[in-house]
Amino acid sequence: MRTVNDPLEFFACTEEFRSAGDRVGLVPTMGALHQGHFGLVEAAKRLCDRVCVSIFVNPLQFNNPADFDRYPRDFDADAAALEAMGVAAIFVPGVEDIHPAPINMRVATSGIVDRQEGAHRPGHFDGVATVVSKLFISVGKSKVFFGEKDYQQTRVIADLIREFHFPVEMVVVPTVREADGLALSSRNRLLTRAARDAAPAMYAAFQAGRANAVQGSATAPVLASMRRLIEDRAAQTGAALAIDYLEAASGEDLRSLERFEAETRFFVAASYDGVRLIDNVAVFEK
Amino acid sequence: MRTVNDPLEFFACTEEFRSAGDRVGLVPTMGALHQGHFGLVEAAKRLCDRVCVSIFVNPLQFNNPADFDRYPRDFDADAAALEAMGVAAIFVPGVEDIHPAPINMRVATSGIVDRQEGAHRPGHFDGVATVVSKLFISVGKSKVFFGEKDYQQTRVIADLIREFHFPVEMVVVPTVREADGLALSSRNRLLTRAARDAAPAMYAAFQAGRANAVQGSATAPVLASMRRLIEDRAAQTGAALAIDYLEAASGEDLRSLERFEAETRFFVAASYDGVRLIDNVAVFEK
Repeated sequence: MRTVNDPLEFFACTEEFRSAGDRVGLVPTMGALHQGHFGLVEAAKRLCDRVCVSIFVNPLQFNNPADFDRYPRDFDADAAALEAMGVAAIFVPGVEDIHPAPINMRVATSGIVDRQEGAHRPGHFDGVATVVSKLFISVGKSKVFFGEKDYQQTRVIADLIREFHFPVEMVVVPTVREADGLALSSRNRLLTRAARDAAPAMYAAFQAGRANAVQGSATAPVLASMRRLIEDRAAQTGAALAIDYLEAASGEDLRSLERFEAETRFFVAASYDGVRLIDNVAVFEK
Repeated sequence: MRTVNDPLEFFACTEEFRSAGDRVGLVPTMGALHQGHFGLVEAAKRLCDRVCVSIFVNPLQFNNPADFDRYPRDFDADAAALEAMGVAAIFVPGVEDIHPAPINMRVATSGIVDRQEGAHRPGHFDGVATVVSKLFISVGKSKVFFGEKDYQQTRVIADLIREFHFPVEMVVVPTVREADGLALSSRNRLLTRAARDAAPAMYAAFQAGRANAVQGSATAPVLASMRRLIEDRAAQTGAALAIDYLEAASGEDLRSLERFEAETRFFVAASYDGVRLIDNVAVFEK
């Protein structure tokens, strides 16, 4: 497994793979890898000959510096796991490698970034689009793999690929969950015991909501009972809960919906004892 | 000569060139080609095996819609000239090909864009950086050729390449001038007779300024006499003159200089009978 720090060197590396006739895949991550990431790597291995993984905790996408500082980092374990999986190269740039000072150029986003994560994390998606653009430029022609847990992010990146004509094809991989339904996230490592016990209620609420949802019916009463379920569980475990949003929204453009439609998804963002988690599911089976 | 409209098709075309071992060059233009552009093509032919030329009048970089509407367009003559020069491919996308609606993603610029053209044309360099990013993504690994007449643009694009790690190498080609010193520009076609007679005074002023400039001495008196020369000529021909800026500034970061330094350049932007022209020169020989 090759380890590359410099963006242009990473491009040269993937060019070498492509010139040998190999299909290149990239799994962009912020490290602290878990089974969700490994699922992305497995998906990439099925569709590509040479799988690359980038590990970069991107300061531009953290609106909260404390969140950036405490974001989990575990490079040695990450590298060992990826090597064991047969990853061809890891791209592990430093902040100055990716964002050399002075920073005069950024990608500015509009549209669906006004909702959900974009509304609660000012500048977040500009930071995401900027770093993802740099990763796409560095990897060149490839398939790129993103997790559905960050659903809005996948929609923003779809816009980025469409508008900037990146020669990359995005593959969105379903969310991996713990046995109790909690979506895997690097941030789960930071949860207190009470928070860890309370957080699966988000998925339990999704399941309850799916059971109660009917196309054409009002979303508000369903969401109200979902919210109670989440709040009651946190009250039981003693975790401090702050729900940023819990909504039924279009899977296309993320606008909030008053009535259930075929493509409606449930979305939640909530902090448990100060650790912010997000999740989403499709309301109706395909 | 191939003619390509679609960005991904253009990428496939240059990939084919590269896979045959050919070095690819790109000359980005807005069409209405003149000897300045042909000089870029000749430079590209010296350094590359397959020269591509893009022709795209980018609406995002025009702060003034009337300027966009009347910008000269002459596709048939452009294509014939490029074919005669042995150009391998022309990339001639429509506006929707490059900027498919809705536009949710742009490159936002800061730094030296606050000066000169950026100060006088709000949003201009965001539009430039956005379209140039798309062209660089579409052309892939290559050498790219830009004219020194748009000096600030070359500095912005250098930032873009450096910060986004484009696998492109920029070559800046000296300005081509008419016999009377007027820098070639597609906009020269729009000049009235009086304007055409008056505009060479910008270069005459540069020459007078170069003769009077001494390193370490004050720029203001030199610039004052240069301004008089430009104004007097316009008064003689009857062209309506509006000078946006005439300054001595650093060739590195474009900050205005009160005293001449080794890397100082003269910069001018002026409208003659409503047609806006720019030019620049190094003050001192290297």
